[in-house]
Amino acid sequence: MGSIKRVAVLGATGSIGRQTLEVISAHPENFRIIGLAAGKNYKLLARQIKQFQPRFVYSQDRKAPLADTDYKFLSLEEMASHPEVDIVVVATSGRWGLQPTLAAVRAGKRLALANKESLVMAGEIIVAEARKSGARILPVDSEHSAIFQCLEGETAKPAKIILTASGGPFYKYSPARLRKVTVEQALKHPSWRMGRKVTIDSATLMNKGLEVIEAHWLFNIPFDSISVLVHPQSIIHSMVEFSDGSVKAQLGCPDMRLPIQYALSYPGRLPNPKLPRLDWENIKELNFEAPDFKTFPCLKLAIEAGKKGGTYPAALCGADEVSVELFLSGRIKFTDIAKLVEGALESHKAISHPALEEILAADSWAREKVLRGEKR
Amino acid sequence: MGSIKRVAVLGATGSIGRQTLEVISAHPENFRIIGLAAGKNYKLLARQIKQFQPRFVYSQDRKAPLADTDYKFLSLEEMASHPEVDIVVVATSGRWGLQPTLAAVRAGKRLALANKESLVMAGEIIVAEARKSGARILPVDSEHSAIFQCLEGETAKPAKIILTASGGPFYKYSPARLRKVTVEQALKHPSWRMGRKVTIDSATLMNKGLEVIEAHWLFNIPFDSISVLVHPQSIIHSMVEFSDGSVKAQLGCPDMRLPIQYALSYPGRLPNPKLPRLDWENIKELNFEAPDFKTFPCLKLAIEAGKKGGTYPAALCGADEVSVELFLSGRIKFTDIAKLVEGALESHKAISHPALEEILAADSWAREKVLRGEKR
Repeated sequence: MGSIKRVAVLGATGSIGRQTLEVISAHPENFRIIGLAAGKNYKLLARQIKQFQPRFVYSQDRKAPLADTDYKFLSLEEMASHPEVDIVVVATSGRWGLQPTLAAVRAGKRLALANKESLVMAGEIIVAEARKSGARILPVDSEHSAIFQCLEGETAKPAKIILTASGGPFYKYSPARLRKVTVEQALKHPSWRMGRKVTIDSATLMNKGLEVIEAHWLFNIPFDSISVLVHPQSIIHSMVEFSDGSVKAQLGCPDMRLPIQYALSYPGRLPNPKLPRLDWENIKELNFEAPDFKTFPCLKLAIEAGKKGGTYPAALCGADEVSVELFLSGRIKFTDIAKLVEGALESHKAISHPALEEILAADSWAREKVLRGEKR
Repeated sequence: MGSIKRVAVLGATGSIGRQTLEVISAHPENFRIIGLAAGKNYKLLARQIKQFQPRFVYSQDRKAPLADTDYKFLSLEEMASHPEVDIVVVATSGRWGLQPTLAAVRAGKRLALANKESLVMAGEIIVAEARKSGARILPVDSEHSAIFQCLEGETAKPAKIILTASGGPFYKYSPARLRKVTVEQALKHPSWRMGRKVTIDSATLMNKGLEVIEAHWLFNIPFDSISVLVHPQSIIHSMVEFSDGSVKAQLGCPDMRLPIQYALSYPGRLPNPKLPRLDWENIKELNFEAPDFKTFPCLKLAIEAGKKGGTYPAALCGADEVSVELFLSGRIKFTDIAKLVEGALESHKAISHPALEEILAADSWAREKVLRGEKR
């Protein structure tokens, strides 16, 4: 009994949420779903409720007809901090992950954190609260999971973190060609299957910039010790260099179920024949090159915002989320995403060491700023 | 005082021994040389004695004039098991490493083990003795050090070990071209600087086969879970696959000082700006391919000997050492090495679970067998 971990999945109907349920289904003797939370995909949520029979449920509209099983309706924060929950998987996207993350951290939970924005926007607060409560944050992101795995068992801090980047679908494109990119093209990632927002962020390299900020907070590493390396095959998920020059890397097929399962099974590992294996007889080569900061300005914008700190990363996230939505709805060009984000950051009046409300306000301000700018 | 580790280096004048002294010189606050042992290179040993002022010395001829400092002359076994020694670096080559290794293991020492033959010939005995005494064996071999580093902090046994191999200087050679290879060509390894014996073993891939046997004993892994992957750049030093499909790799510049230092500093790491760093901006690609067992029969011979067990690996080592000497002295062709080793193994009458004397006898038998065969 004590060894079965009770898991709450926030964002159960999204890409990471569904893959989390897949992993949990493969290990009924290790995990049990105690809570499921989703936004508006009521149909899928209802099916998930029938299958997993959770004790706790959240959906955006609590009156939506779901399943006719017994469950208690909780808010995201209530679920994330409920005493009967052992592991909280935060797979909600965007700013909506921030407050549940904070609730789970304050309750000292094990977090499997897939929501990037929490640490990007409020890394300082989350890290401080985790230190107080003893909450353990396990990253559900192939890059940060890789770094986490490479650091296990090491007694000293890493000298350097090398985040690998696939480069996205447009890596070798010229600026002129990039301007003409369609939504359909941008949604076709060469190696990963992910949600729409993160797929576009991968194409602009904004995603990699957000990951740099996330790594800074997760591993307590200065920005100057974090570098980005383009590695198109997405097989080396990231690397760590130690003070003696030794480098450790974690590798695997590009499949999010691996970092999800690791975050759940840590510090152990669970056999899972359903997870794909690298086939070295067919991996003829792995390639590497420096990132092209010029053609993909979002990468630098994000790193700069991370270095400046304060509310800059929150403004970055807000501006980016709205810009990506505008691109997805066909209202701006792919290359306008970086321009709109840059414009918002340039006119942002930042606050240092902000409180949560100030972070959320900066995010909202940036969203409005972009929407206004777009109409100009 | 208690934190300075007292190190005895057996094989101080060889390639690994000299690099060990280099590493120790870089960390006077962490290590002190307490013993130096060497074979016949009296000149260099005398210089090392002057520089490091060891308390204990061994040389092949105890009457050889060394340095006029105060030291006590000990046998290799006495030095390896002396109570004042904290770490024993076994860098003697060939069968001469076996007995000091066993003495250090029985005395419960930390071993930095660079001598392959000990584990290959007497793995069963050494592992059993280490379990009894609590001796910790740290491999000084880039491949096994890599695996050791990848396993640190992991709670479960690895599912698979992937030993990388540079392929040596002749990797793409045809059998016909291989027959004409000269000693000079064979001594030019593309990526590693090493002693003559191990350089030839690298060229025949015998070295990789010995490493498979070594890995089997060091990590308690069945032979069928150990594979060899040719990786010409020698940057990934080896990999481990876990039960969830995750793979960890250790990478670095091909420089033996890194695994030497790690074996000394473990479980920590020591900053060392003298050790080279990987420069990812210049590593354009890493390549991989399956090993060519047909052109390099020594690889299969060694793995087969390992699987058969008993005195087969000892016979393999003895036959190989003599064959390599015959090649180095110009008396046989490069491709004869495999033939002579194969001939010896075919007529070997093996003993299962042999005692040390039986292991040494099998080694001696194989040496004579090869010498006799060569005259035929």
